[in-house]
Amino acid sequence: MLKRIDHVAIVVKSIDETLKFWNESLGLSLSHVAHEEGQRVKVAFLPVGDSEVELLEPSDGKSGVARYLEKRGEGIHHLCFEVENLDAAVAQLKRQGVQLIDETPYVTVSGNKAVFIHPRSTHGVLVELYEKPVSQ
Amino acid sequence: MLKRIDHVAIVVKSIDETLKFWNESLGLSLSHVAHEEGQRVKVAFLPVGDSEVELLEPSDGKSGVARYLEKRGEGIHHLCFEVENLDAAVAQLKRQGVQLIDETPYVTVSGNKAVFIHPRSTHGVLVELYEKPVSQ
Repeated sequence: MLKRIDHVAIVVKSIDETLKFWNESLGLSLSHVAHEEGQRVKVAFLPVGDSEVELLEPSDGKSGVARYLEKRGEGIHHLCFEVENLDAAVAQLKRQGVQLIDETPYVTVSGNKAVFIHPRSTHGVLVELYEKPVSQ
Repeated sequence: MLKRIDHVAIVVKSIDETLKFWNESLGLSLSHVAHEEGQRVKVAFLPVGDSEVELLEPSDGKSGVARYLEKRGEGIHHLCFEVENLDAAVAQLKRQGVQLIDETPYVTVSGNKAVFIHPRSTHGVLVELYEKPVSQ
């Protein structure tokens, strides 16, 4: 069902500050920065191998990511895997009683369909599953 | 400098309990389980794409991982990248004032040389760098 790790998302106070480590010290290149209006976050994408590191900076104090930052501080926020068929994956998870945060897939800023699985069902890890659009 | 995400390590109370999610619900196969004597943890390896999910279960109450579990609960513990040349990477990080947990690389249960970077230098993420032995 899972093809690969698509990305590891890290919550940061400031993308500019954090890039000093990821870009200057570790040498990862910044691909681009996008604004995810729905989630109220700015996202920096840093490809590495067949995956990406994503840095999430809250756009304002009201987003879920801002509340996470306030409560837990900077650190890894979630782990995202690519799946072949998201609808089939969601149906299988529901049959097994796995709790999803989104009852139906949402569309990300990159145009991918995705769902989050509740950490209650994963032993503490926020897991995202996404399906790449056929055109990519 | 970084080639790919080698693994994402997750601290769990019980590998057997957590495998119900990763194996039965998400379909990841368990490659093997190893005992890391030095770190006093049992590690379950679940390959996915070009990377792995690793589940870390403390062998006793005295390990660093056990203390982490007690303090923060189950969840993502660290993020590991493969590098081409660990000695060169360590030298570069030291020149830049990045704080390492290990002053010199240690050898993992899989026979790899590795170092951990202190979360103080990464904005909250425990990052491991490892070099694959030439024979692999």
